[in-house]
Amino acid sequence: MTQPLRIAIAGLGTVGVGVIQLIETNKAILERRAGRAIEIVAVTARDAAKNRGIDLSPYRWVDDVGALAQEASADVVVELIGGADGAALTLARAALASGKALVTANKAMVAHHGLELARMAEAAGLALKYEAAVAGGIPVIKGLREGTAANNIERVYGILNGTCNYILSSMEQDGGDFGDALTAAQQKGFAEADPAFDIDGVDAAHKLAILASLCFGTQIDFGGVETSGIRKILAADIAQAKALGYHIRLIGLAEIDWCDGAPYLFQRVHPYLIPKDHPLAHVTGPTNAVVAEGNFSGRLLFQGAGAGDKPTASSVVADLVDIARGETGPAFAMPTGRLENMPRANSGHRTSKSYLRMVVADRPGVLAEITAAMRDAGLSIESLIQHQPGDDGRALIALVTHAGLERATAQTIAALSDSDAMLGEPMVMHILAE
Amino acid sequence: MTQPLRIAIAGLGTVGVGVIQLIETNKAILERRAGRAIEIVAVTARDAAKNRGIDLSPYRWVDDVGALAQEASADVVVELIGGADGAALTLARAALASGKALVTANKAMVAHHGLELARMAEAAGLALKYEAAVAGGIPVIKGLREGTAANNIERVYGILNGTCNYILSSMEQDGGDFGDALTAAQQKGFAEADPAFDIDGVDAAHKLAILASLCFGTQIDFGGVETSGIRKILAADIAQAKALGYHIRLIGLAEIDWCDGAPYLFQRVHPYLIPKDHPLAHVTGPTNAVVAEGNFSGRLLFQGAGAGDKPTASSVVADLVDIARGETGPAFAMPTGRLENMPRANSGHRTSKSYLRMVVADRPGVLAEITAAMRDAGLSIESLIQHQPGDDGRALIALVTHAGLERATAQTIAALSDSDAMLGEPMVMHILAE
Repeated sequence: MTQPLRIAIAGLGTVGVGVIQLIETNKAILERRAGRAIEIVAVTARDAAKNRGIDLSPYRWVDDVGALAQEASADVVVELIGGADGAALTLARAALASGKALVTANKAMVAHHGLELARMAEAAGLALKYEAAVAGGIPVIKGLREGTAANNIERVYGILNGTCNYILSSMEQDGGDFGDALTAAQQKGFAEADPAFDIDGVDAAHKLAILASLCFGTQIDFGGVETSGIRKILAADIAQAKALGYHIRLIGLAEIDWCDGAPYLFQRVHPYLIPKDHPLAHVTGPTNAVVAEGNFSGRLLFQGAGAGDKPTASSVVADLVDIARGETGPAFAMPTGRLENMPRANSGHRTSKSYLRMVVADRPGVLAEITAAMRDAGLSIESLIQHQPGDDGRALIALVTHAGLERATAQTIAALSDSDAMLGEPMVMHILAE
Repeated sequence: MTQPLRIAIAGLGTVGVGVIQLIETNKAILERRAGRAIEIVAVTARDAAKNRGIDLSPYRWVDDVGALAQEASADVVVELIGGADGAALTLARAALASGKALVTANKAMVAHHGLELARMAEAAGLALKYEAAVAGGIPVIKGLREGTAANNIERVYGILNGTCNYILSSMEQDGGDFGDALTAAQQKGFAEADPAFDIDGVDAAHKLAILASLCFGTQIDFGGVETSGIRKILAADIAQAKALGYHIRLIGLAEIDWCDGAPYLFQRVHPYLIPKDHPLAHVTGPTNAVVAEGNFSGRLLFQGAGAGDKPTASSVVADLVDIARGETGPAFAMPTGRLENMPRANSGHRTSKSYLRMVVADRPGVLAEITAAMRDAGLSIESLIQHQPGDDGRALIALVTHAGLERATAQTIAALSDSDAMLGEPMVMHILAE
């Protein structure tokens, strides 16, 4: 009988507890698939006394992450602490330095320090696995690292944050405002008390930076993700978009922009308008979905639960099965030395159809002012909806442009910024190209 | 520099040509991802003289599959001949016997002989890979073998045949009959001149038998797939189903049925009614999609092109990248000795809601006859649509039952078979349970 794969777990929040429950519940099938037992030898967390609803007595309690990383009996350290730096990063470095494979669910740490950790792992001949860091229970890291390995990926994009998707799809369903939908999401446990990381797009940007590296063979560049969130989306935007044939989804999208024969990495998290026939338009609630478009595979979709203790545990333990099987290799699909340090694309050069929404003073000449600004920027209108003004003397104008340079849209907004007809900041959302 | 992975290809139809084009087109990214070059050293096909639209002169032509299997310079044989037996099987056995890894796109061969080939590969320590055999370009074999490895899979099912899905979704869109939709599909290249393998569900059954083995750790049992097709579906069925909130899709579905504490393998290819909110209800045209429901992952969906030279080549070459990386292991997710020989489930024990459609004589008492037969079988009606009779004295009755034993539905049909009110065979389609 082959030796068991011995693991040490740091972090016993809901995901850590889920991993332990999975390993206990699915022991028999895991052993058959992995070819050997997966055995928890040690655990650590901040508070030894806390009641976590499971019996931890079979596992040795270790006092801190330093001791866990040195745990002689472990082959693999599973990092479930969270946070880009701090204890998680200390543990990750120490585990690899002491010759242990590393499995992590930590998107922030991988987005910020993934390349460094991959270099350490590679130099030591150790596995670094992070399936659970992106899109929860969906095996999209394996799907892209192995499943689409034969392709030049043309574009990767998806719904990477379940909180935002829950909020947007409930706004769509109820016709409610952002604030109410956020409160409801918080009450139902789909949004954190401090939701900024999710609703401002930072969480999705972490995941997107990881996907882009995997797909394009580039060094992770989290700083290069142009990030916006969903706070400013009005109930009216959802309704106008729908009238025009679109659904609004927070999308992380990366692709290579070619300029004068040279490649530039474009990465953006942004509330896109999705044509109603696109598969992502049907993804509602906290579900995540990732689309990869390969030059041979065509469009592939991976969809499932983007968060939650059990789905995330499923991904963590899938990584352990890979390690138990000895099916490990470069963390970012190729040796770190082959990952390109690609310059960032300038989004102004991109061509998009865009949705513009302005709240304006209800008086003659405002539409002429807007269309003149668009004409001067070289932008033309595909469709326009002007809302009946309310009693408050404010009117809402929503329009979709023909495909044009994004800098022309920016120029239009800038030209209008001085106009006293504009009441508040205009909203620009690009339309996902088919 | 590591040695290239040297491959020999048998079968130069559209997929074989696609594989060569992929390896040439994506050479640079393949080498970065695989860690070494993938080099074609020899090819064979029935007709050396045929113009295939590509230059084969860089590759050594070998006269037959016997010679290809013995090709000393090759590490891997890629079998793209097709057919469960014959030259494909001869080649597969000979390649493994002469110490070469085997990559195949051949669903029929894997469904019939996969276990034998896996045993040969295992005994010789060789890789056996077949990503392209199921769902074309969708990396669902890797998704299930690795991505969901941590789960007890509760159910696996999907749209596994693009021809049927194209026909059903065009019937849905145009309101046309099966015959017309088939002819149109043939004209557009989505159906073969002899479409029986596709429309009678055999192709989907091959794929389902493979998925079931991977998901449940059972020996492949193609003979155990209860298979029906889509020939008998009327335009009226599509319309009635839609009125009741369902879309009709040919689905391959496998799950474990437990009876008196013992597991039985249930495998069925059948035109299911899919609730309109289910992700598979939105899958139209020749697209394939596979759903796996794991006890920790929850519901996962893998969607993409189910056929075509380029998507299939993407899957074939992904397998080659796995082999180049040395990330190989048991073909069916666990050593062949651990695969269970599980008895077949009796579908009569299953509980389903079902759609029944009968064409009946338009005269008093027919509905009473039907409802009496249902009552006697212990089956009750959830909803019923009786069509206005036409001038021909025939009426169409469509109904959906409450959840009941499938044998009760069969008993109802049997009881009505003697009735002279029944004009033609009734149609039964089960409703996919949420």
